[in-house]
Amino acid sequence: MKEENDVYAFGVDIGGTTVKLGLFDESGSVLEKWEIPTRKENGGENILPDVAKSILAKMDQKGITTREVRGIGVGAPGAVDEEGTMVGGAVNLGWSVLNIPKIMSQYVDIPVKANNDANVAALGEMWQGGGKGYSNMVAVTLGTGVGGGIIVGGKILTGATGAGGEIGHIHLEDEETECCGCKKKGCLEQYASATGIVRLAKRRLAKDDAYSILRDGEVTAKTVFDAVKAGDKVAVEIAEQFGEYLGKGLAAVAAVVNPEVFVIGGGVSKAGTILLSFVEPAFQKYVFYPCANAQFKLATLGNDAGIYGAAALVLK
Amino acid sequence: MKEENDVYAFGVDIGGTTVKLGLFDESGSVLEKWEIPTRKENGGENILPDVAKSILAKMDQKGITTREVRGIGVGAPGAVDEEGTMVGGAVNLGWSVLNIPKIMSQYVDIPVKANNDANVAALGEMWQGGGKGYSNMVAVTLGTGVGGGIIVGGKILTGATGAGGEIGHIHLEDEETECCGCKKKGCLEQYASATGIVRLAKRRLAKDDAYSILRDGEVTAKTVFDAVKAGDKVAVEIAEQFGEYLGKGLAAVAAVVNPEVFVIGGGVSKAGTILLSFVEPAFQKYVFYPCANAQFKLATLGNDAGIYGAAALVLK
Repeated sequence: MKEENDVYAFGVDIGGTTVKLGLFDESGSVLEKWEIPTRKENGGENILPDVAKSILAKMDQKGITTREVRGIGVGAPGAVDEEGTMVGGAVNLGWSVLNIPKIMSQYVDIPVKANNDANVAALGEMWQGGGKGYSNMVAVTLGTGVGGGIIVGGKILTGATGAGGEIGHIHLEDEETECCGCKKKGCLEQYASATGIVRLAKRRLAKDDAYSILRDGEVTAKTVFDAVKAGDKVAVEIAEQFGEYLGKGLAAVAAVVNPEVFVIGGGVSKAGTILLSFVEPAFQKYVFYPCANAQFKLATLGNDAGIYGAAALVLK
Repeated sequence: MKEENDVYAFGVDIGGTTVKLGLFDESGSVLEKWEIPTRKENGGENILPDVAKSILAKMDQKGITTREVRGIGVGAPGAVDEEGTMVGGAVNLGWSVLNIPKIMSQYVDIPVKANNDANVAALGEMWQGGGKGYSNMVAVTLGTGVGGGIIVGGKILTGATGAGGEIGHIHLEDEETECCGCKKKGCLEQYASATGIVRLAKRRLAKDDAYSILRDGEVTAKTVFDAVKAGDKVAVEIAEQFGEYLGKGLAAVAAVVNPEVFVIGGGVSKAGTILLSFVEPAFQKYVFYPCANAQFKLATLGNDAGIYGAAALVLK
């Protein structure tokens, strides 16, 4: 039986292919989750109306009234300022500059908050995932790129232009000759992302003829860590290089924001705790001693971190 | 004439030799400032009682009642957590672990807040100095060491163990052979502090016999920048190296906290705007583009930043 004082929230994670949605109760449990396609045509003009319609349909289906919904949180792929404006638009969605709460308010009479998807995922991991129990946290997403989200005193550090926590673009390597996606050379992302690990692996394999099972097929971040688990020496060298870059980068982050915990997620983190065993020693090598007690945890919410964090934007 | 609703605050900046004190009105004007010696003997047990006595004497002299004082802010040289506890004590004061507000409450019936001196100075510069008008700021103090203070949304980023903003210990140089004060090698502080600039200068001068007016006397950060102003080519090379390290370090900081402004202070900053002309181009070379609009300003409060920021702890 639903009580008069029930309070719900919706968490929305807008991606380039699908929009993930979740219905949460105020304790942070997800009651239902579903997806709708991201319609990017015509400058992505349908995306937010589609989200609003889907939420209204779910409320109708569940018999939830507007008054019972505390808010809708939205994570979107791009820089989002404190007012929920996508200051640089969102290339992946076809969006130019727009204000998410303002557009949503045309369709639903419910408060809306928005933030960058990586920041929102970080908040989700702090609320119900690998960072649960902490309030000063750095989330590190090792996927196609290296993303980050910084939580200070339980709140997202958005930054002046919504680029807080973009730790993948810390410069670490003066000798790099290839360009990062950001057009600079030597960013953390060039070594610690899935493609970065492949870059390190290819360079190592090209260096000499040392035996490695990695020579037998396609090299991916997964095959590298699988080979590490199988005791492949060359793969271990590659993972050490990866750990050296990531540990050094996170030591720099620690000297700036002095977190209690780093929560490592994204596709690369599926390698599991063995990944941390390469990062933590390098971190200790470079970290300023008062920041050395930072814990390392794996993210636990996977692809749901975004909807959890989006709901946390309005529930916390 | 003093009004019933006048509100005052005291700002206290505890240093290793003297304690600076300031009486402020709530608009942030300093009405009076003075100093007392820092009595470090017996584990520095007299320092906080001396501060309390000096404040009570000033109130007596001015006819200010306890009710008219909103609070006392204190900056102290060491890591201070959110509760005002010096988590690692303060070597320079002889202090072991202690809670500043708790000790002060034995002597004065006025709310007390404390934070690290560098963080407090940063807050002061944001409130009434080089960072006035901004709320997302990184203060960089180039003195004997390199200190920092990070302000996010108008508040000090303290960090998990009070080490937020310790940007002098970002690792930047793998080739370094000398140890930093923190026992690691290659910290920003080893190149961008006053002693760091001397290190860079001595290394450059030892490299060859190129003419430089720096060969004529003692080399200090001041003589290096004076030589730069006089057009000395070797000094310009040294300043470029300094700028390269500092710009690279601040670009890393920008990728983490995405500030609106960097405010550069400390003894080295007395070189003036010419210093920024070496830092900004290097910063632009390494910074992630969404963070590239960060402004660079010189600190304006000098040694008074601490008392201003301490007052801001309770007035803002």
